[in-house]
Amino acid sequence: MDFQETLVLIKDDLESVEKAISGYFESDVEAIPLIGSYLFFGGGKRVRPVMVLMSSRLCGYDGDSRHIAQSCVVEFLHTATLLHDDVIDASPKRRGNPSANSKWGNEVCVLVGDFLFAKSFDIMARDGDPKMLRILSDTCLRMAEGEVMQQINIRNLKLMEEEYINIVERKTAALLSTCCKLGAVLGSGSTEEEEHLASYGRNLGMAFQLVDDVLDYTADEEKLGKPTGTDLREGNVTLPLIILYHECSPEQQGRIEHLVETGDVHPQDVKELVELMESHGIFVRVKSRAMDYVRKAKADLSIFDTDSPYLD
Amino acid sequence: MDFQETLVLIKDDLESVEKAISGYFESDVEAIPLIGSYLFFGGGKRVRPVMVLMSSRLCGYDGDSRHIAQSCVVEFLHTATLLHDDVIDASPKRRGNPSANSKWGNEVCVLVGDFLFAKSFDIMARDGDPKMLRILSDTCLRMAEGEVMQQINIRNLKLMEEEYINIVERKTAALLSTCCKLGAVLGSGSTEEEEHLASYGRNLGMAFQLVDDVLDYTADEEKLGKPTGTDLREGNVTLPLIILYHECSPEQQGRIEHLVETGDVHPQDVKELVELMESHGIFVRVKSRAMDYVRKAKADLSIFDTDSPYLD
Repeated sequence: MDFQETLVLIKDDLESVEKAISGYFESDVEAIPLIGSYLFFGGGKRVRPVMVLMSSRLCGYDGDSRHIAQSCVVEFLHTATLLHDDVIDASPKRRGNPSANSKWGNEVCVLVGDFLFAKSFDIMARDGDPKMLRILSDTCLRMAEGEVMQQINIRNLKLMEEEYINIVERKTAALLSTCCKLGAVLGSGSTEEEEHLASYGRNLGMAFQLVDDVLDYTADEEKLGKPTGTDLREGNVTLPLIILYHECSPEQQGRIEHLVETGDVHPQDVKELVELMESHGIFVRVKSRAMDYVRKAKADLSIFDTDSPYLD
Repeated sequence: MDFQETLVLIKDDLESVEKAISGYFESDVEAIPLIGSYLFFGGGKRVRPVMVLMSSRLCGYDGDSRHIAQSCVVEFLHTATLLHDDVIDASPKRRGNPSANSKWGNEVCVLVGDFLFAKSFDIMARDGDPKMLRILSDTCLRMAEGEVMQQINIRNLKLMEEEYINIVERKTAALLSTCCKLGAVLGSGSTEEEEHLASYGRNLGMAFQLVDDVLDYTADEEKLGKPTGTDLREGNVTLPLIILYHECSPEQQGRIEHLVETGDVHPQDVKELVELMESHGIFVRVKSRAMDYVRKAKADLSIFDTDSPYLD
């Protein structure tokens, strides 16, 4: 079964999530539904809701509302971090469209991010499950710490692989892990099931991010929805660059330092760096690291009944 | 009993709050305790913790830890909004010291604000009282809505008094109201006590903000810790300006429009505007509005036993 076929299983649930998102955006402050509809109906893939829905069904959840609310919780939280990231990166584009901050200004984006963050907790508080609430608040703390760590390491070429992996774990993988764990709790899964699903989400998150790091250097600009080399330009030192920097000649290191420190990066610079990375086999190695995480993620699911259609 | 004498009653509690704040800031991300100690030990008056502590004792709370945790919840939430406000206003100063954003950059301040927001919910989630959690999440939503409303009305001289009061209610008064309400719930106060204390906090918050709006035009720069006329410069249309704009001549209106639209405000402009406001008796009228709120706040406390030392 491929991803699209799998989605058919939760098609109705996903439609309910879309409706619920609109509902939660009602506010007498008219800018809020306006920005909300721009943010939420601009073609996101709803990866996080899918993970909540699938995990809850896999663990036997058979209700018809709490998994929808929880999907909104994680999607709102994710979108709040995207909004604050865009402010920080001053990104002009997101998924190929003008980013919210370039449309409404940084100020409103910080505040709408805060609104989404509050909404996420509000839905969770109304759901009323103290365990799930603690999972959410823990995750938010880890994510905020990861964001701070990333920010203080901007333009820092001394960042080590291990520290970078730690940042990705908090910044990206923690939320995906939480999506799966919340689903497991909703479905009253055993502690073992919870832990395996949490680990599955974390491994998948790590894989996603490493692939993303490679794509930022290699992907087609149109498919990516933003210019190639954005990480380099913004001073985000990611795994391909960390490996390259430690392996290349002192002259090449000097060149990289100049690019990262100034952020004055032209398409030709990106092209040269990509060639250098290719000659060091870096993309192959990072992708292979990502595949290791995917394998671990699959292994995490081994405890589940192989007959469940949600397992695919 | 004056405010300083009243504080003696909760001196030990306030010291516990200070210790607890440091404790909550522990993190393996070293920037977090660093910025935390700068933010929290730079001379804030802990108005919100005082309100939680007093209200809880007034309603008969006799425990020794939950009121401390709740004081941290509201202080963290308040500080998170200050951090995001400073980013938005690009303020160089806060309470006379360099603001956190001018010291560490906007990016880190957005993220540390997010961390504080998450911490606030985390403490609340661990406390585990669903009612208090819903009060907190409701408040956060109202505050975020208020902030968005304020932001979309920047440089808007058409803002009406009623809308302005609505913004202040959400942006400032809601949290003070919540401080008192949380204290009442902690002390197992009756519904009537909860409502009266919530109203007390709201009225006090309204009074605070209106006095603040006047001081922004009239106070001594050194006492204020920031330049006079900051609101005008940042395009924050507050009550004194709203009243003046509706009462002055078309020429004067044109002059005000120019100042607010360009933000090009010199000390001499502020001085002229202050004289104009004085000639219209605006400060007297706004302060009298503030006094009305103080009177209402006092009336809210009439249901309590007049013997309680916490009532003063």
